[in-house]
Amino acid sequence: MSCSEPHRWRVRVYWEDTDAGGVVYYANYLKFMERARSEWLRELGFDQSRLRDDAGAVFVVRRVEADYHAPARLDDEIEIETRLCELGRAKLVVSQRLQVAGALRVEAVVTLVCVAAGTFKPVKIPPSIQDSLPRP
Amino acid sequence: MSCSEPHRWRVRVYWEDTDAGGVVYYANYLKFMERARSEWLRELGFDQSRLRDDAGAVFVVRRVEADYHAPARLDDEIEIETRLCELGRAKLVVSQRLQVAGALRVEAVVTLVCVAAGTFKPVKIPPSIQDSLPRP
Amino acid sequence: MSCSEPHRWRVRVYWEDTDAGGVVYYANYLKFMERARSEWLRELGFDQSRLRDDAGAVFVVRRVEADYHAPARLDDEIEIETRLCELGRAKLVVSQRLQVAGALRVEAVVTLVCVAAGTFKPVKIPPSIQDSLPRP
Amino acid sequence: MSCSEPHRWRVRVYWEDTDAGGVVYYANYLKFMERARSEWLRELGFDQSRLRDDAGAVFVVRRVEADYHAPARLDDEIEIETRLCELGRAKLVVSQRLQVAGALRVEAVVTLVCVAAGTFKPVKIPPSIQDSLPRP
Repeated sequence: MSCSEPHRWRVRVYWEDTDAGGVVYYANYLKFMERARSEWLRELGFDQSRLRDDAGAVFVVRRVEADYHAPARLDDEIEIETRLCELGRAKLVVSQRLQVAGALRVEAVVTLVCVAAGTFKPVKIPPSIQDSLPRP
Repeated sequence: MSCSEPHRWRVRVYWEDTDAGGVVYYANYLKFMERARSEWLRELGFDQSRLRDDAGAVFVVRRVEADYHAPARLDDEIEIETRLCELGRAKLVVSQRLQVAGALRVEAVVTLVCVAAGTFKPVKIPPSIQDSLPRP
Repeated sequence: MSCSEPHRWRVRVYWEDTDAGGVVYYANYLKFMERARSEWLRELGFDQSRLRDDAGAVFVVRRVEADYHAPARLDDEIEIETRLCELGRAKLVVSQRLQVAGALRVEAVVTLVCVAAGTFKPVKIPPSIQDSLPRP
Repeated sequence: MSCSEPHRWRVRVYWEDTDAGGVVYYANYLKFMERARSEWLRELGFDQSRLRDDAGAVFVVRRVEADYHAPARLDDEIEIETRLCELGRAKLVVSQRLQVAGALRVEAVVTLVCVAAGTFKPVKIPPSIQDSLPRP
């Protein structure tokens, strides 16, 4: 896949993110990835709450492929790289890498679809967002 | 406080509920309590999704007082007792006790208010619910 | 893939599981799947807390492939089918399907590895578990 | 209560924090408060993972009193003020206020106890932390 330059963003691991195994619970990495995608869109000028209120559109996840290489732990600072790898009429595919101190922890390919907030039916990604997204 | 007879309901502790301290994360007991309140209402005949769609009303938490006596752990089965202790026009006060094998873990007094789904302004508890609730 | 007969288990959707889009938050389906895997192991006679304390072993997720077909909502009862599709020395691959009223919502293939609780290095799945698992 | 000068810290509301009511789920404010307490301790020089590994001590919540005044929503930036109001041998009482754009959303008084990581029995707060904490 040829993807855009990465957006980089950092998140800290708190008690809430960990489990009794002493490491981050596997579903919680998906929360970190979603936060990073939200910050990436915000940096491009798009608050998702405004997108929903103004355009009646929300992005939903259609598919996740995640590989867990090594665990992150309490107090770790995770750097998340988000790259746009595919851009369709209603669809985005992003690649995300989570690293701690330069070492890979989790990587994922996430497919998102823009849908109407009420019906969850796919709709065209608003042109203002289409135009702002980095070229994959 | 004079309260109603308890509603009893059981919940299992999974990995997601625990933290790196090896015990249930403190905010997650509030999730268990909310599940128990939902099941208590469901047993009285009220699904909250239907309440919202039909009457435009939702219950929101106004105040929580929680005492953490001892931790629950992975695989524990928690019995939750829910008692109605006060019933107003728009307000409910419930007392909830979480026990594992008969030993108290957490107890809480939770104040709920019935509000309009859109505005979050207090509204009268629907008469059908008022009539179904156990007398405190 | 040829997989074992399904283990079936049900989970209810509560407020905690939903998000402001009105549906279950995408990471939370992974919690439901993990609960189902825990109950599947428990039904075979294995509490994971005991497995960790006695054998020093825990199962960790190495890979998730999840397809989100349609959202689940507040008060939905989700039926989760869990099938064992591959069984190695240290590795399990399970297929999980989440349905509401017979309609598919999410399906996933999850790869788990048995690791030492301290080091997270792969170890042989304890023979008692190997022997109890259904043949894929 | 006479309390210390506030520690201030900001947290953003993401999809994961909200529920189908369109606002932050009530238990999740407790996560925000815990993050703020972690950052407050970190700013004083204490990583809790190191505290646990070196001194075998962790802080656990003994009591929470939380008042929910108004809801926070997706994309809100919440400012959390944390004040130390009581400091005992093994016990801390903090007061926390969550505001959005200067308007109060939630306030809480949280009692924490320093315990041994294994037994959860109260232990003296390490002198280095005692000395670093602001005077209430």
